Amino acid sequence: MARSSGGRSALSRIMQVFTAFDVDAVFLNISQLSARSGLPLATTHRIVAEMEDFGLLERQPDKTYRLGVRLWEIACRTPGALGLREIAMPHLQSVQTRVRQHTQLGILEGREVLFLERLSARDAVVNVTLVGGRLPLHVSSSGLVLLAHADEEFQYEVFSGELFRYTEQTVRSPDALRQLLQKIRHDGFAIGNGFIHPDARGIAVPVRGVNDNIVAGLSVVVPNDEAPTLPLVRLLQGASAAITQDLLAAYTPQADPQSAPGGRFRQLVSSSADSMEYLPTAPRPTRAGR
Amino acid sequence: MARSSGGRSALSRIMQVFTAFDVDAVFLNISQLSARSGLPLATTHRIVAEMEDFGLLERQPDKTYRLGVRLWEIACRTPGALGLREIAMPHLQSVQTRVRQHTQLGILEGREVLFLERLSARDAVVNVTLVGGRLPLHVSSSGLVLLAHADEEFQYEVFSGELFRYTEQTVRSPDALRQLLQKIRHDGFAIGNGFIHPDARGIAVPVRGVNDNIVAGLSVVVPNDEAPTLPLVRLLQGASAAITQDLLAAYTPQADPQSAPGGRFRQLVSSSADSMEYLPTAPRPTRAGR
Repeated sequence: MARSSGGRSALSRIMQVFTAFDVDAVFLNISQLSARSGLPLATTHRIVAEMEDFGLLERQPDKTYRLGVRLWEIACRTPGALGLREIAMPHLQSVQTRVRQHTQLGILEGREVLFLERLSARDAVVNVTLVGGRLPLHVSSSGLVLLAHADEEFQYEVFSGELFRYTEQTVRSPDALRQLLQKIRHDGFAIGNGFIHPDARGIAVPVRGVNDNIVAGLSVVVPNDEAPTLPLVRLLQGASAAITQDLLAAYTPQADPQSAPGGRFRQLVSSSADSMEYLPTAPRPTRAGR
Repeated sequence: MARSSGGRSALSRIMQVFTAFDVDAVFLNISQLSARSGLPLATTHRIVAEMEDFGLLERQPDKTYRLGVRLWEIACRTPGALGLREIAMPHLQSVQTRVRQHTQLGILEGREVLFLERLSARDAVVNVTLVGGRLPLHVSSSGLVLLAHADEEFQYEVFSGELFRYTEQTVRSPDALRQLLQKIRHDGFAIGNGFIHPDARGIAVPVRGVNDNIVAGLSVVVPNDEAPTLPLVRLLQGASAAITQDLLAAYTPQADPQSAPGGRFRQLVSSSADSMEYLPTAPRPTRAGR
């Protein structure tokens, strides 16, 4: 990669511009982009202009910039995010139709849980989960099932980091967390009562993929009340098993009779059975400039 | 942007690697990446290594690469894609719960319709729409409503381009397309019977945003049979009006009593009412290296 002033590569500067945007900072002008990225104003101008040319940034009538739809379109080819979400989505919808609260799918990214999807209802309980947002592992029920099944070295790293405390109920000591993880492994599910907000309860189960690896946490966020939790655990376990089955079929070699229809599309796409049969043979116009 | 051999910038080479991936080519090895991007093998090696360092690409155990979850995470800050999808999502879910076929949201990108969401059912009719996928405007019902309300110069460009023919029913002449667009403007909705596949019917209505601009097409794909279409049009029109109302509230200045709760989050996030009230005040741990 071409390097210029300060030895930083072009890509590192592009990443600085990308990460200047945040979930509560989606429109930024050039000065804000320069300040938040740490890049000089002239450099910011130059990079932003080229990113705009490629559709990675979009200029608004008020001269602010936002991340471009083209970036999102490219990112939709990510099997680890959209692909997993597509395969899980029908099962998330089934859960949410029954529970009518928040239903979510999270994966381990770094030392946090990253949420690929969150289905909600207008009158659902308070919940901080965002699509594309992260939470610390020790506070989120999805994060806790992912952490409970991570290797010991990784767990140790998390124990020795800061255990950020959201509420009085948040687990705050490595010892208490170690005990909680043991219980989660034993039970096969995680329940967090008021760990993030006093009114909210998270319930999560692990989702297994190829080679029995745990690839995600499937969870609901419901009111932190006296309602029984076991029916929700059972509902989640059924959905998780169904996701695993669909994941395995999607990743089984195409020649195998157990593989899902859809050919080379099926690791990224989940549509109706007829659509998956049809997709590999569907005519596709050639597209200039794609 | 730093330029090297051949005058192409670092960003243009990164884009060549990004766009080497496609919906049916989600795992590529270095040789394939080099061949598909048109970059020399040594250059591909160098760029791919740096993109992997930043999490934009992920290396698999079989030495193929896939687009990285980090890319998807950054792209989730795109108000024109995820933001619009988030605001529309509860209304898409309502429609899909009633129709139990495909329900989709598409926007105009270049001379095509780009789909931000597609909710499906396992036994739904055959449909080629993909999340993050594009279709020509003249064959998709969402594309047709977007084209019908585009300016004349843009329409002329589309008329003079290739009108790719999927089926016997696909509109194939500029004159027929012009008449169809006039009817769509008059009716307020588009119906495509078998334009993409003989078994499928698309029904779409426009979605208006700030300044009465049309920002998306909302559609269902249902069986191409004798069932009446008007109830579906009415259902879509109700959902479209509700999306518009939520979009306007999300983009109304924060000080205004008509603005939606959620502060600076609300142009990207749509969760339950309690969650939107809470989000701006929620504690957020500081995150190193984000």
